[in-house]
Amino acid sequence: MRDYTGGAEPERQGIRVARAALTRLMEPSDLAGMALIRVAGAVEALRLIQGTFASSASLERDMSSVLAEAGMPRWPGLADALTRWRPRLADLAPDRDLNVVARLGGGLLIPEDSLWPAALADLQLAEPIALWIRGRGPLIPELHRCIAVVGSRDSTSYGATVTGELAAALVQRDYTVISGGAYGIDAHAHRGALAAASPGRPADGPATLAIMAGGVDRFYPSGNEDLLRTITEQGAMVAEVPPGTNPTRYRFLQRNRLIAALSAVTVVVEARWRSGALNTAHHADGLSRPVGAVPGSVYSANSAGCHRLLREGSAVCVTDAADVAELAGAPGVNLAAERAAAPAPHDGLGVEDLLLMDALPLHSATTIDKLSVVAGLGTATVLAGLGRLELLRLARRVNNGWQRCSP
Amino acid sequence: MRDYTGGAEPERQGIRVARAALTRLMEPSDLAGMALIRVAGAVEALRLIQGTFASSASLERDMSSVLAEAGMPRWPGLADALTRWRPRLADLAPDRDLNVVARLGGGLLIPEDSLWPAALADLQLAEPIALWIRGRGPLIPELHRCIAVVGSRDSTSYGATVTGELAAALVQRDYTVISGGAYGIDAHAHRGALAAASPGRPADGPATLAIMAGGVDRFYPSGNEDLLRTITEQGAMVAEVPPGTNPTRYRFLQRNRLIAALSAVTVVVEARWRSGALNTAHHADGLSRPVGAVPGSVYSANSAGCHRLLREGSAVCVTDAADVAELAGAPGVNLAAERAAAPAPHDGLGVEDLLLMDALPLHSATTIDKLSVVAGLGTATVLAGLGRLELLRLARRVNNGWQRCSP
Repeated sequence: MRDYTGGAEPERQGIRVARAALTRLMEPSDLAGMALIRVAGAVEALRLIQGTFASSASLERDMSSVLAEAGMPRWPGLADALTRWRPRLADLAPDRDLNVVARLGGGLLIPEDSLWPAALADLQLAEPIALWIRGRGPLIPELHRCIAVVGSRDSTSYGATVTGELAAALVQRDYTVISGGAYGIDAHAHRGALAAASPGRPADGPATLAIMAGGVDRFYPSGNEDLLRTITEQGAMVAEVPPGTNPTRYRFLQRNRLIAALSAVTVVVEARWRSGALNTAHHADGLSRPVGAVPGSVYSANSAGCHRLLREGSAVCVTDAADVAELAGAPGVNLAAERAAAPAPHDGLGVEDLLLMDALPLHSATTIDKLSVVAGLGTATVLAGLGRLELLRLARRVNNGWQRCSP
Repeated sequence: MRDYTGGAEPERQGIRVARAALTRLMEPSDLAGMALIRVAGAVEALRLIQGTFASSASLERDMSSVLAEAGMPRWPGLADALTRWRPRLADLAPDRDLNVVARLGGGLLIPEDSLWPAALADLQLAEPIALWIRGRGPLIPELHRCIAVVGSRDSTSYGATVTGELAAALVQRDYTVISGGAYGIDAHAHRGALAAASPGRPADGPATLAIMAGGVDRFYPSGNEDLLRTITEQGAMVAEVPPGTNPTRYRFLQRNRLIAALSAVTVVVEARWRSGALNTAHHADGLSRPVGAVPGSVYSANSAGCHRLLREGSAVCVTDAADVAELAGAPGVNLAAERAAAPAPHDGLGVEDLLLMDALPLHSATTIDKLSVVAGLGTATVLAGLGRLELLRLARRVNNGWQRCSP
């Protein structure tokens, strides 16, 4: 198997095999399971489920307090959880699973590894047991280098264009684009990222990562097979469920929490009023990670979900990679300055000078007295103001009076 | 002249003539002028500027404290302000101005009239001296019935369509659409409002009002002459400057503050990154009136200003009249309920029932034991869950086991 650890001490290898097994016994975000692993450790947690290690009152007490801290003050107890996990014991073959993924050029990343993404700790008790990774590219970059670009499966041509351009521009800014490998916006995000990836890309940043709801041994959906294969060659596929696992509704929703947790910003490009992409956005919001929503036509049902996020204040309006980089807290980004047209020469004029400038004719000339009447200013103010406007090349003296300079 | 007062006591008529004169001497938002009127009254303020009434130390002291309250702790003094106002005395002809507007079917509304819009008090010292109104329709409705719809002069066909539909839908909801009478979005807003106005519209609500930067005796810009004429027949043109006054840059900016102050919500449909419409939005924001921005394509420069407002948090995303009505605080609007598709039958299911439902096959049947393994749930939980799903018609018992019901 691929070695992410820089070493393979027997102890960590034992933990890896145990965690591989536990990813098959427990569904994502099984809080009782996570409490058990936290209290007993992965190896003993597995032995306990296998019945070769005895439960104890103090173990249950410690699990209870871990769960209480996570907001589950009452739980049915370990015996109940065991009835959930034990039916799957018969299917357990962690060495086989590890071999399957190793043959595909991947491996299992565990929290004990130095390359484990620190950002996942923000999921607290719902941190994954381990991550199955399939890819030849380097591993998951730090949080501030990762941007999720997600959206509906039924994208419009507008959504496809925006997504492709956004993903490419993010990769050009050295971000890794994270998405879910699905049809529509997800696929356009991966493709845009791959298209922009240069051979000289630094080794610590793959262009794109696909976070899967099912096992990484399968290219799902099948219509994305070529795309996902390319991702495993230039980036990586990532899942918290073991090889052979079907994606289910529950696992899709849990997968969305991983996308949100691994990304500094989650951008929703197109989403209907009810859309799975909004679930990813809400996970990001719950993790206090910024969410960007791309606006679109008010007549497009595919933008209704984005407009909903904007309206509810759950997302910030983003229109390009610069907006997204700003949300990600990129240093040195001064968007207003980047965007603003050259300031108009009259910017910053006081009210009296503005009044005076308005009163100056463009094609003829006028006198101080007339200016005083038209502008509604005293003669002294008019004279002082004309001096300032002349300096700014906004007014000029002509033979018989004053006129405005054409811009 | 048109009588908005229901009576014409000689005293109020004197104030009206004085205020008519003062609108010619003072530019909009001349704070010193407003302080003078507030302290001395309109009639004596005019006499003082004309030199037939003596200034006094106590008058200046009172003006200073009014200005200090308005955030101008130091001001050059009354003598300085008089040099600003006096040059225009020669042009003063308030009776002529009142007659001009009366012949056009209009009149001058002053704060002493019962129909003076209470909402303008929110402008504090920048409340207009008076409003020149030209229209056969009824007067300015209460704040909560008025919506400003504004935007760029160079609208796209998208902006034109959204504006027309939005304005029409607002009028159908009995709102008055306020705009600036300009080309582009303004014109589409007025036209949409007029198109939707029914003969049965209640007498207290004109379909649309055009707030002008110049005098109401002129149809400006000339290309909107027919439109503005129709507005004077079915709604009204409104200005704080007297007839014959040219619109200037300064007066456009000040006019924007009136649009914002008279409207419960200001909606920007299309605006470039730098646009006068954003100025109206900022006035509304400054008055704590909600601002709505219509989203559009990220490729449209005409939507860049709207997206800027959304991004900066100065505006709420609005996509139709229902969104705007909600911002205006219309009672009984429950947008989420209005919009949401029928809830899915699995909404509200607990995690275990969701896992169970995912595990149920759609086209074949499965056993309790298999469900227990696939779902990762104990047998007792599977049995209880199947009972709940059966009740919700999400699962059914078949000869040799259980299957999911097709939706």
